[in-house]
Amino acid sequence: MNQAAAGQGASGKMRISLDAMGGDHGPSVTIPGAARALERHPDIEFLLFGRSDLIEAELARFPALRARSTIHHTDVAVSMDEKPSQALRQGRYKSSMWQAIEAVKKGEASACLSAGNTGALMVMSRFCLRMMAGVDRPALACMWPTARGESIVLDVGASIGAEAENLVDMAIMGSAMARIVFDIDRPSVGLLNVGVEEVKGIEQVKEAARILKEAKLPNLAYAGFVEGDDIGKGTVDVVVTEGFAGNIALKTAEGTARQMAEYLRSAIERSFLAKIGYLFARGAFRALRHKMDPRRVNGAVFLGLDGIVVKSHGGTDETGFAAAIDVAYDMVKYELLGKISKALAERGEWVLPGASSSMVEATSARKPSENPVTKTEEQ
Amino acid sequence: MNQAAAGQGASGKMRISLDAMGGDHGPSVTIPGAARALERHPDIEFLLFGRSDLIEAELARFPALRARSTIHHTDVAVSMDEKPSQALRQGRYKSSMWQAIEAVKKGEASACLSAGNTGALMVMSRFCLRMMAGVDRPALACMWPTARGESIVLDVGASIGAEAENLVDMAIMGSAMARIVFDIDRPSVGLLNVGVEEVKGIEQVKEAARILKEAKLPNLAYAGFVEGDDIGKGTVDVVVTEGFAGNIALKTAEGTARQMAEYLRSAIERSFLAKIGYLFARGAFRALRHKMDPRRVNGAVFLGLDGIVVKSHGGTDETGFAAAIDVAYDMVKYELLGKISKALAERGEWVLPGASSSMVEATSARKPSENPVTKTEEQ
Repeated sequence: MNQAAAGQGASGKMRISLDAMGGDHGPSVTIPGAARALERHPDIEFLLFGRSDLIEAELARFPALRARSTIHHTDVAVSMDEKPSQALRQGRYKSSMWQAIEAVKKGEASACLSAGNTGALMVMSRFCLRMMAGVDRPALACMWPTARGESIVLDVGASIGAEAENLVDMAIMGSAMARIVFDIDRPSVGLLNVGVEEVKGIEQVKEAARILKEAKLPNLAYAGFVEGDDIGKGTVDVVVTEGFAGNIALKTAEGTARQMAEYLRSAIERSFLAKIGYLFARGAFRALRHKMDPRRVNGAVFLGLDGIVVKSHGGTDETGFAAAIDVAYDMVKYELLGKISKALAERGEWVLPGASSSMVEATSARKPSENPVTKTEEQ
Repeated sequence: MNQAAAGQGASGKMRISLDAMGGDHGPSVTIPGAARALERHPDIEFLLFGRSDLIEAELARFPALRARSTIHHTDVAVSMDEKPSQALRQGRYKSSMWQAIEAVKKGEASACLSAGNTGALMVMSRFCLRMMAGVDRPALACMWPTARGESIVLDVGASIGAEAENLVDMAIMGSAMARIVFDIDRPSVGLLNVGVEEVKGIEQVKEAARILKEAKLPNLAYAGFVEGDDIGKGTVDVVVTEGFAGNIALKTAEGTARQMAEYLRSAIERSFLAKIGYLFARGAFRALRHKMDPRRVNGAVFLGLDGIVVKSHGGTDETGFAAAIDVAYDMVKYELLGKISKALAERGEWVLPGASSSMVEATSARKPSENPVTKTEEQ
């Protein structure tokens, strides 16, 4: 599917499909979030999937959004704690999540956004959209706040385990995303490892390093191994790792950040003088809170699928949901899929024949009937 | 080797061997650190390995320590950036690190402590002390500050990859350590995973979960899967994971904590009012710094070796080094090795016959001549 053409109305508008029911709060967050995103990007048209009564009730407050939206009623919504296999069984074809994804498949929308169950979204997206040619498995790429700004980290939990070729694919896909998000020509890419020396780590990571070093890809500056603490330092633009370690790293970092914030809060609350100090320092604490605000960097992208699917945090508010719409918008406007395809083609020319042909075999060996539920893991 | 007997002088003193040259600062930290630990534990006798001139110079300031120390001169010290294989080649037999470990092997000391190169310490320890009977590979267990106090997390980088049996061994060894450190009978143990549902994660982790659940070990309360953010919450006393993910989790958490501290510092420095607020809140910030002080929880333990080896942070000061000596002291005094052996024996009775026998085979199949350098990875 050609993404640049898909989902663009005759008017040249960009169509984005929303799973309006997704997330902890459903339409009461997704609709106001869409309204806010529309103010920034007046060329968006929304396809809204979910219970029409709830959607209509929210839309009443946002006439501008209503004028730019088409509502597609669904009775079924995937719940946040459903197992992916169960969600697929019960929600295929008829849930708001499935239909929002399917709109991309049919070319009616250029991107799909959901704040729903991550595992279900991944499995349904893979099932409905299938993988891009030449890519074996999907990866979830998130934005990670760093001391220097932000980096892209992938895979944070779409797949478990990765061969060297999967890691190389992720490096290519992540750098295509980074070119859009950071507006740079040749993002730096590091492979997450337990040390920076060449001899360290597992075979697949070492082999991926060898391929990336020799390939000298035009749009990717391979920067070697990075360690866990390099992510927060912002040592590279793109950090590549297999989904098990990536998911654990992401959640460990989120947990540590919450723990620090809690330490700070309790340190201040325990002392009268500190509370007075807090009053003076309020502005600084506000800046700190802003800096640590997870909504700022909301919107993780599933890479490797033949279509753009963006995942918003489930617990986010309208600000965060609007930020995730911005991500979807940018991925379409700056042609994520086209950039990835082009970069994958360049990989073909550069990678050593052995690695390249085994990669092609692995890809073509994937049976169309293969059930993605058994092959993938969710966040 | 019977640890309770080893390294106990006729006087009933406990002997601890120190790699006096280890760490970023060598004797200028290790000797004052030992002096401080001696104040708390007057029954320690130290075997000090390293350059005698440097050690003597430091000891001059601590007559009490000098009276309880024996100096063993070595010309060679393993440097912090040496590769483990290189360290083994150049430092075997003659380096301060090797000889400190060897003192445990010979029964002259009950535990060895080094702030030196982690990878070299691991490889040398494994080479010199060998594994305990029934354990296949070593694990590095660290103390992790949590919202509820501390937890033990292992493996943070001694080995890469783990079979189900290795994870079960780690659960048993980690809980033996937790019984000492936290003084509880039946520590709770969780397996680190990408979700808490039973269907999630990699095969080895799921299989380990099955074994631990069915084994119902007397000194270990298996608590199921935990996720990355559960570590900082202190959901369980012991978190078990394979060394690649564990090392990345540890370093990611360290990086995130530093990043938060840096955000806070820069938020306060950027505003005049905030600086005034800081003056009021100084006490709270001091408490916060204390809470976040990595020295408080210094001292990671190599588990699975036939002897006690404790690793101190390389960059620590005398306070931190003394804390690591406390750890070594407790591991000897409360009989870590005996507790692990006993728990491993209990495992034999409980684990399903299939899993148990394959574990025994795997262990006995390890050739004594096998070079640990090629089999292990360093932090």
